[in-house]
Amino acid sequence: MALIVQKYGGTSVANADRIRNLASRVGRFKKKGHQIVVVVSAMSGETNRLIALAHEVTPTPDPRELDVIISTGEQVTIGLTCLALHELGFKAKSYTGSQVRILTDESHGKARIIDIDGHNMQKDLDDGYVVVVAGFQGCDAKGNITTLGRGGSDTTGVALAAALKADECQIYTDVDGVYTTDPRVVPEARRLDRITFEEMLELASQGSKVLQTRSVEFAGKHKVKLRVLSSFQEVGEGTLITFEEDSKDDNMEEPLISGIAFNRDEAKVTILGVPDTPGIAYQVLGPVADANIDVDMIIQNQGADGTTDITFTVHKNEMNKALEILRNKVQPLIHAREIKGDDNIAKISVVGVGMRSHVGVASQMFRTLSEEGINIQMISTSEIKIAVVIEEKYMELAVRTLHQAFELEET
Amino acid sequence: MALIVQKYGGTSVANADRIRNLASRVGRFKKKGHQIVVVVSAMSGETNRLIALAHEVTPTPDPRELDVIISTGEQVTIGLTCLALHELGFKAKSYTGSQVRILTDESHGKARIIDIDGHNMQKDLDDGYVVVVAGFQGCDAKGNITTLGRGGSDTTGVALAAALKADECQIYTDVDGVYTTDPRVVPEARRLDRITFEEMLELASQGSKVLQTRSVEFAGKHKVKLRVLSSFQEVGEGTLITFEEDSKDDNMEEPLISGIAFNRDEAKVTILGVPDTPGIAYQVLGPVADANIDVDMIIQNQGADGTTDITFTVHKNEMNKALEILRNKVQPLIHAREIKGDDNIAKISVVGVGMRSHVGVASQMFRTLSEEGINIQMISTSEIKIAVVIEEKYMELAVRTLHQAFELEET
Repeated sequence: MALIVQKYGGTSVANADRIRNLASRVGRFKKKGHQIVVVVSAMSGETNRLIALAHEVTPTPDPRELDVIISTGEQVTIGLTCLALHELGFKAKSYTGSQVRILTDESHGKARIIDIDGHNMQKDLDDGYVVVVAGFQGCDAKGNITTLGRGGSDTTGVALAAALKADECQIYTDVDGVYTTDPRVVPEARRLDRITFEEMLELASQGSKVLQTRSVEFAGKHKVKLRVLSSFQEVGEGTLITFEEDSKDDNMEEPLISGIAFNRDEAKVTILGVPDTPGIAYQVLGPVADANIDVDMIIQNQGADGTTDITFTVHKNEMNKALEILRNKVQPLIHAREIKGDDNIAKISVVGVGMRSHVGVASQMFRTLSEEGINIQMISTSEIKIAVVIEEKYMELAVRTLHQAFELEET
Repeated sequence: MALIVQKYGGTSVANADRIRNLASRVGRFKKKGHQIVVVVSAMSGETNRLIALAHEVTPTPDPRELDVIISTGEQVTIGLTCLALHELGFKAKSYTGSQVRILTDESHGKARIIDIDGHNMQKDLDDGYVVVVAGFQGCDAKGNITTLGRGGSDTTGVALAAALKADECQIYTDVDGVYTTDPRVVPEARRLDRITFEEMLELASQGSKVLQTRSVEFAGKHKVKLRVLSSFQEVGEGTLITFEEDSKDDNMEEPLISGIAFNRDEAKVTILGVPDTPGIAYQVLGPVADANIDVDMIIQNQGADGTTDITFTVHKNEMNKALEILRNKVQPLIHAREIKGDDNIAKISVVGVGMRSHVGVASQMFRTLSEEGINIQMISTSEIKIAVVIEEKYMELAVRTLHQAFELEET
């Protein structure tokens, strides 16, 4: 008998039929003798409908009241899920975030979980109930309803698993696991049986949409065993996200590379010919950060003539805003030779814990791209990742070729 | 400066425009220096939509989970109402039933209010906030979400007014007050400036749809000053529902009759020729009550031959069920001569505290109906009410003629 937390997203609860399917699946686990906690999102489209309703009243809804409104989406789903479980003859009881008492800070719309009281849930589990919890929501110390932000239901699942010391947290999505890369780009992409947390984190933050970065971080921090599964397939083990130590046990030889992520949502901003003095990076990037623009890659190169070039990437939607800030606020102070933007780029990341102990991954990557005539515009590396920026039109070619070069195909 | 509780029904919050109107009205009271608590229902149609959603999953939804689902209707409205008030520059804060802590018993779907904690609301009012509370809902001692049943938002309004010792509880509806009778039947019907609680209770339970019986009872018990107003008219004093003592102060001569209510939703069930022995009424009506059929009027007449006749009224939808029970379960025991049903009836009630001190109201009523050739099938009286059952097709004629006979028209 295990305690399993299962998280289902909006498409898995989109209508009565899907909710019945979900209940059947939960029921099968229950019949095997497991204790089950189900975390559900709002029915797909519902959160957007509620946000639109708020925007009909005001273009700038107060975050506290917006949370009161949108948290009803998950509340409806927990009730419906319990009804479907009852219909199959199972005992089930729903909990809103406030009822569990998922205590968060006061940051409406992007609250962070501080503590979870697992007492009542554990009692219900011991009494044979399936416990159904609203994802994405909690309450602050004063009882105000808070939400965790988009994708927060994954985080709720992981946090509940940590609080209840669950044996496993299963994330049901519309894909059946984590792949070596997006199968829509590379049909030969292979599902990974397991992947380490660090790799998953790199893949998630590099553009893989399967799991929210934040929930992976949370799982890593609290050592929650996480598994990604398909909610539309009856069988399949999905992908287990493991701690590196565990995975080493049964993998004598680690794969060099686990996966390839890509992202075409970024744009590149370059400042050429800046006087190479201390503090110049801050002078350039400080005003950008002050404008709440998220910066991803940052590269600085020293030139020969006492000047330096700085390049960074931002979301495509924010490139013009960033350029405006640089031209109006920064240029008068630093007198750069040129400031330019390019939103015709894509970022490709090769990820794998194996590259720690293997030299040559970078050079293999660069050679592969060079053989295809693809020019590399930026390079950024971490211990288990090499990311490059290339011209956008080469993105799919690059991903396919690298996938082949690193022998990631289905065998 | 007064503390006023204002309750708005589903049609008053049906869309963003109506909610903005509501906010403007609340704002005008606020600007006059009043402290305002707003109680809102779900947007019209929303509760039915949510119930339908539950029924898509199961024909017999568990009451606890159904409450979790349908209570979201009012939760959305409180958020939207606060947003509309913010948009006009007012401070406003929403409360769900659980957040106020409107403590109820555990009867999901028809919970009764036990206690209200007014502490936080009073603090917010003193800090200049408009407090916006979800009607129709509360929570039990264990924190389970409960609902008060249809029309429960009126009760929430009255209960909050009692807990906060408000100066007045204003119920905004789609009519501009309580009328001598339904203006759709009698165009000359007159709005009453004031009416006593007892009269309002009789009118409410006799088919007048303006206020829910239960909220009137609650207001009477806790001496809450209640006023019915139109949410679609800018001016108007509506109808004040008073305690008899107050109303006597400024009405030297009481009107004989305050209003005429009618109801065509009932059907009549008659058991003829029952042995007239003690306990016979219970033998007949016990099984009907056991089947959860609500009985309204009950009349028993002694016959000359040692037998008696019993007649009672039930909702039209339940007549056949009642007949079936009588024929299958009761008849074998009591051997009645005949059991028959008639759903072709209407009930008309003449209500007025004045009839206590004036003889002749009943005889005037009977004479008026007789002059129109309308046969009276049943009569039932209370201290301030005379109700008769007649053939349904005469209902409108009877109401119009009585309205004229008792001189209730607009003058």
